[in-house]
Amino acid sequence: MKVNGKHYQTIWLNEPEEESVSIIDQRFLPFQFIIEKISSVEQMAQAIKEMHLRGAGLIGVAAAYGMYLASLEAPTTSLKEFQEFLKNSARKLKQTRPTAVNLAWAVQQQLDSIQNLKKIPEIILKTKETAKKIAGDDAKNCRKIGSHGLKLIEKISQKKGGETVNILTHCNAGWLAFVDYGSALSPIYAAFDKGLKIHVWVDETRPRNQGARLTAWELSQHGIPHTLIADNTGGHLMQHGQVDMVIVGSDRTTANGDVANKIGTYLKALAAHDNKIPFYVAFPSSTIDWNMLNGLKNIPIETRDAKEVKYMEGTFQNEVVEFLICPESTPAINYGFDVTPARLITKLITEKGICAASEQGLKKLFGAKSH
Amino acid sequence: MKVNGKHYQTIWLNEPEEESVSIIDQRFLPFQFIIEKISSVEQMAQAIKEMHLRGAGLIGVAAAYGMYLASLEAPTTSLKEFQEFLKNSARKLKQTRPTAVNLAWAVQQQLDSIQNLKKIPEIILKTKETAKKIAGDDAKNCRKIGSHGLKLIEKISQKKGGETVNILTHCNAGWLAFVDYGSALSPIYAAFDKGLKIHVWVDETRPRNQGARLTAWELSQHGIPHTLIADNTGGHLMQHGQVDMVIVGSDRTTANGDVANKIGTYLKALAAHDNKIPFYVAFPSSTIDWNMLNGLKNIPIETRDAKEVKYMEGTFQNEVVEFLICPESTPAINYGFDVTPARLITKLITEKGICAASEQGLKKLFGAKSH
Repeated sequence: MKVNGKHYQTIWLNEPEEESVSIIDQRFLPFQFIIEKISSVEQMAQAIKEMHLRGAGLIGVAAAYGMYLASLEAPTTSLKEFQEFLKNSARKLKQTRPTAVNLAWAVQQQLDSIQNLKKIPEIILKTKETAKKIAGDDAKNCRKIGSHGLKLIEKISQKKGGETVNILTHCNAGWLAFVDYGSALSPIYAAFDKGLKIHVWVDETRPRNQGARLTAWELSQHGIPHTLIADNTGGHLMQHGQVDMVIVGSDRTTANGDVANKIGTYLKALAAHDNKIPFYVAFPSSTIDWNMLNGLKNIPIETRDAKEVKYMEGTFQNEVVEFLICPESTPAINYGFDVTPARLITKLITEKGICAASEQGLKKLFGAKSH
Repeated sequence: MKVNGKHYQTIWLNEPEEESVSIIDQRFLPFQFIIEKISSVEQMAQAIKEMHLRGAGLIGVAAAYGMYLASLEAPTTSLKEFQEFLKNSARKLKQTRPTAVNLAWAVQQQLDSIQNLKKIPEIILKTKETAKKIAGDDAKNCRKIGSHGLKLIEKISQKKGGETVNILTHCNAGWLAFVDYGSALSPIYAAFDKGLKIHVWVDETRPRNQGARLTAWELSQHGIPHTLIADNTGGHLMQHGQVDMVIVGSDRTTANGDVANKIGTYLKALAAHDNKIPFYVAFPSSTIDWNMLNGLKNIPIETRDAKEVKYMEGTFQNEVVEFLICPESTPAINYGFDVTPARLITKLITEKGICAASEQGLKKLFGAKSH
């Protein structure tokens, strides 16, 4: 997507050597646009853990590139030592963040792809190819999500006789959360590019403010009308007919259609349900955890530093600083995600099409994988 | 209640002259404890509008004192001019904030109390007496709410065999929102003082952060265990059995039991309902609007400056400053309240006792008034 008119993806191999990776360091958005060069698996693990980049798809792709960087660093004294280093790197990358399944999935893709290779140069080449493929598929799948989801927006637009369609989204499931296009925002970009009248309600998304900082920035870069609201506001808007549909992303979707997404998603789903507003969840199939059948019971929910609740980042006199927003001694807790049960979800939007949020719905679309 | 061990109320007449009022200027809490002296109705109207003080009960009491200050300032050249000044002052005070009904109610109490008086000194004396009575009743009623609500906490405590009762609250309906004790927090103070094991989940309450700034501060001054959470977090806690009950306040309760309270209350009520957790609303009867029978349709919802969403206050290098937390050009909207329909409310807690959130329930408690 575009940043100040220039095309960017969120992560790329640095040419011509292709021996390091660059990322948009999202910690500084929207205040500063900074590119970070990443040259080791250690650095990549840190970038994921400390959220230089974030978003279900993107941390998967980042981990895949991390495995490639690991293969460049691994000791070449023996195949065993080389493989040992890769295995340790895989473990390290998987441990960076627990909730999104893409991360573990991407690392596993890498391990599977090299398990029968016995020559170090071949392994290095393979991890590079696999990382590129995962990144390419991520962008391609997000684009497909956009064209499937577009139909849902078009339908509402027609029903409203071409009047503005108001879409509420939570957190950032835009192109910044993937390689390009995004999941929840991809249909929105597609609708806007097609000339439909749309307006997006952007949930601030405390405590890390990905809505206020990333989604608002993304949408403004693309010229899409939007309004920032406190996370508390969505219910009121829905009660008063100011929301036509909700689209959010997913960090992990269980085989029965439960969805772990940014904390607070569940509250919006309840409000949508109470007001009979369609609630859609958009994600590439790399987000599906086929081994789980109960999101509420089984998905591990990340607990992050309480500091993210007590302190907030913003600009003061043109500098990005961190400030305290409660009494210094106040205890706080910081859960990163919650689980929205399938019963509250109208439909799931994937690269393969749209389906019911149920085991049967997902099976219909993805067939064999779900067994 | 206590501030650093010393007893305070939120508003008081300055002795011995009793010709000015002092308030705790809540804009600076929890970072600074500042007392503001208020000497004119104009200054009081501004203090209410700009939220030097806030909270359903307190703005009513403040408006009542504002009418007394107006009577001290009014021209004494003729009774007509004097009364005219009071009428204009009443109008000005009523316009400061639209959602809480206590404000209009308190001003009306003042107007009613003096309508048959023809001597200026008598009117001045009467407005002072009425203001003092409204303030005194506010504290007394809040205390009663505490002893009625205490029974509900005791019941859960017994059911849990004395284990910690986890109570979630939204915004600040503590003593800072009234003259003393508070509404939602009054039963919590009563339970703690009786030695029950309790713990309070404090919703941050964006955009003005009354939870993070006021409730966390209040509870810590009283030594009550509490944890600050983002507004997005309550649903997740309820899904996982970490909330035993919810108690919130009310800015306006309609005759059928609908409740306007700080934006986001509705979302918590939905989550409590979805998880079968009791959801209580505590308020003195001055908050009841007997003329309304549909909160969602009829209660006016205040829209405040978008700046409160885009900027946040906090401390940086020991100074209280305002920070930008989104792109500067981002449009935002700031609704102050939402309406929780009676069907989502387990019981109402008032100074007269506990009742169902329904016309019948309120009628049973308050009888004649509701006709």
